[in-house]
Amino acid sequence: MPQHEKYMQRCLQLAEIGIGSVSPNPMVGAVIVHEGKIIGEGYHHKYGEAHAEVNAINVVIAKYPNHADLLAQSTIYVSLEPCAHHGKTPPCADLIIKHHIPTVVVGCRDPFAQVDGKGIEKLIAAGTEVITGILEAECQWLNRRFFTRVQKHRPYIILKWAQTQDGFFAPADKCQYWITGTEARKLVHKWRSEEDAILAGKNTVAIDNPQLNNRYWAGKSPKRVIIDRRLELPATLNVFDNSIETLVFNEIKTDLVGKTTYIALEDFDRFVPQYILFQLYLQDIQSVIIEGGVHTLNSFIEAGLWDEARIFTGGADLLNGIKAPKIYGILAAEDAIGDDRLRVLYNKPNH
Amino acid sequence: MPQHEKYMQRCLQLAEIGIGSVSPNPMVGAVIVHEGKIIGEGYHHKYGEAHAEVNAINVVIAKYPNHADLLAQSTIYVSLEPCAHHGKTPPCADLIIKHHIPTVVVGCRDPFAQVDGKGIEKLIAAGTEVITGILEAECQWLNRRFFTRVQKHRPYIILKWAQTQDGFFAPADKCQYWITGTEARKLVHKWRSEEDAILAGKNTVAIDNPQLNNRYWAGKSPKRVIIDRRLELPATLNVFDNSIETLVFNEIKTDLVGKTTYIALEDFDRFVPQYILFQLYLQDIQSVIIEGGVHTLNSFIEAGLWDEARIFTGGADLLNGIKAPKIYGILAAEDAIGDDRLRVLYNKPNH
Repeated sequence: MPQHEKYMQRCLQLAEIGIGSVSPNPMVGAVIVHEGKIIGEGYHHKYGEAHAEVNAINVVIAKYPNHADLLAQSTIYVSLEPCAHHGKTPPCADLIIKHHIPTVVVGCRDPFAQVDGKGIEKLIAAGTEVITGILEAECQWLNRRFFTRVQKHRPYIILKWAQTQDGFFAPADKCQYWITGTEARKLVHKWRSEEDAILAGKNTVAIDNPQLNNRYWAGKSPKRVIIDRRLELPATLNVFDNSIETLVFNEIKTDLVGKTTYIALEDFDRFVPQYILFQLYLQDIQSVIIEGGVHTLNSFIEAGLWDEARIFTGGADLLNGIKAPKIYGILAAEDAIGDDRLRVLYNKPNH
Repeated sequence: MPQHEKYMQRCLQLAEIGIGSVSPNPMVGAVIVHEGKIIGEGYHHKYGEAHAEVNAINVVIAKYPNHADLLAQSTIYVSLEPCAHHGKTPPCADLIIKHHIPTVVVGCRDPFAQVDGKGIEKLIAAGTEVITGILEAECQWLNRRFFTRVQKHRPYIILKWAQTQDGFFAPADKCQYWITGTEARKLVHKWRSEEDAILAGKNTVAIDNPQLNNRYWAGKSPKRVIIDRRLELPATLNVFDNSIETLVFNEIKTDLVGKTTYIALEDFDRFVPQYILFQLYLQDIQSVIIEGGVHTLNSFIEAGLWDEARIFTGGADLLNGIKAPKIYGILAAEDAIGDDRLRVLYNKPNH
């Protein structure tokens, strides 16, 4: 058992390299072990490309002339159930069967309706030994974005904001004010590189004129999502620079202008978070980081529609101004980031 | 403890009387016990009207001149957490506090974001003793439709079909064929009276010309939901008789004609079940029974979007024809209904 966990841990490490590149696919890592030695490793690099199992098997084929014999005596570890269906690539379960790999150790089941146990069934039906549930919770947690999209039919929602020591979000006079330092900002850009979309409301965009992209970290920028009910934001703002795909939810028009897509919602007095999340879901966006302002954050909190909250507290006091959102969740971590404090909350597990 | 469970069981019985009348509210029952004797009972009768706690307290007030003393020495049992917010009626938590009822026994928490523990907190803050989790699973199960809408942002989905002994759904020649007997039909009409909506696809409506209403049982008929992509169904069919509100999902128009609402979907090649469920959710429809045909049922099964399947098997064989859907779930019940057999399956608890 500790051996199984060691190799599954390695699968998780490999899988995580795919963050920001594989969505809407899950991140997956695979390791092939022969007589206590890793002879091949692989992970899913990029959406539409080869799965982890394929990459790991190809490494063995490329490295060892006697690969057929080796594979027939090996164990393959994979963090997510091998697929059983023809998607953009052929079924991995078939590939494992074809190479006569006798034992498959699976981290967790794939909840996607076209897999969902069928990969494991296929392997067992072919006489493969299948061991499941090794580091299961860790494997599920790694793909919490994917699991949320597949099981809850909405993206995984991360709330992010900064507040002062005394609980204020911004000054009352609506001018821009930086609560946190450069380390926090860098971390926020790393987070942006990991998610499919970033969302902000009209006031935040109007007051801060943010770019809402990733400049201080390697990797991609998320799609931008703006809520601007009456389309009052001027086209000169940074978010309309057409450098990144940008969605603007409003009540006036549905239209595509350059990389900016306007989507009209029917009922702006109710269900705005739900409408937006459903539209993101339909576009295969499996995670969104919501960066404010207070009104936007509160609308998601009040609807119970959030999974994770990442809250910075800066060193200064504001004494008055706009109050930060109130939120209740499970405190998962508390860290010092430069001179700022970061708390991470999770929403209730049953929500 | 057995005492608590006995009274909570009574709350559940009372609550269930509200089925078909209280949606999109939950069903709730309440019992007030003084020195081992029930002195008042109530349940939520109808959407928008008084909550269970109010009705139970009003019974005590009407029956006993010394009601103030009695209530101050009683325990109130309620199957769902008392509300803490001003909705269509004032908060029940406030009412309990106002009448100085010293102990509240709660079946399960209300997951609705505006309650969600706040009712219990309010009671405790006022010095009320609160006992929670009595018959919790039963109380949650009773309101599985409400819980699904609030937590999953979609209606609770019941699939219903009948198949022959040899697994066929209908003859190949697309003529109408009754697989089950009158007892089964009556039961199906009872089920229709319990759900907010009933859904069928174009072929079923074209071939069977069903009324999709409740004629053989007391109570209301559900709203009708039809999928007719290219609006090919003739207006002379029973479902267009304007006797009941009817939604027609299509790709051509959004329009309201009499009691028939046409809703155009953008992308009929993908996500049809998801689109429809979201539109029903936006209309506060918290349950839907899907009565066919095979194509429609399979589209929900393949998307993993179902909660309960109720499958009749008739006595006859068809030998050939259209195959019944394949479905995997947890077998919850198997009963004889007249000459037919009824199996009830639940989808996996984590879905």
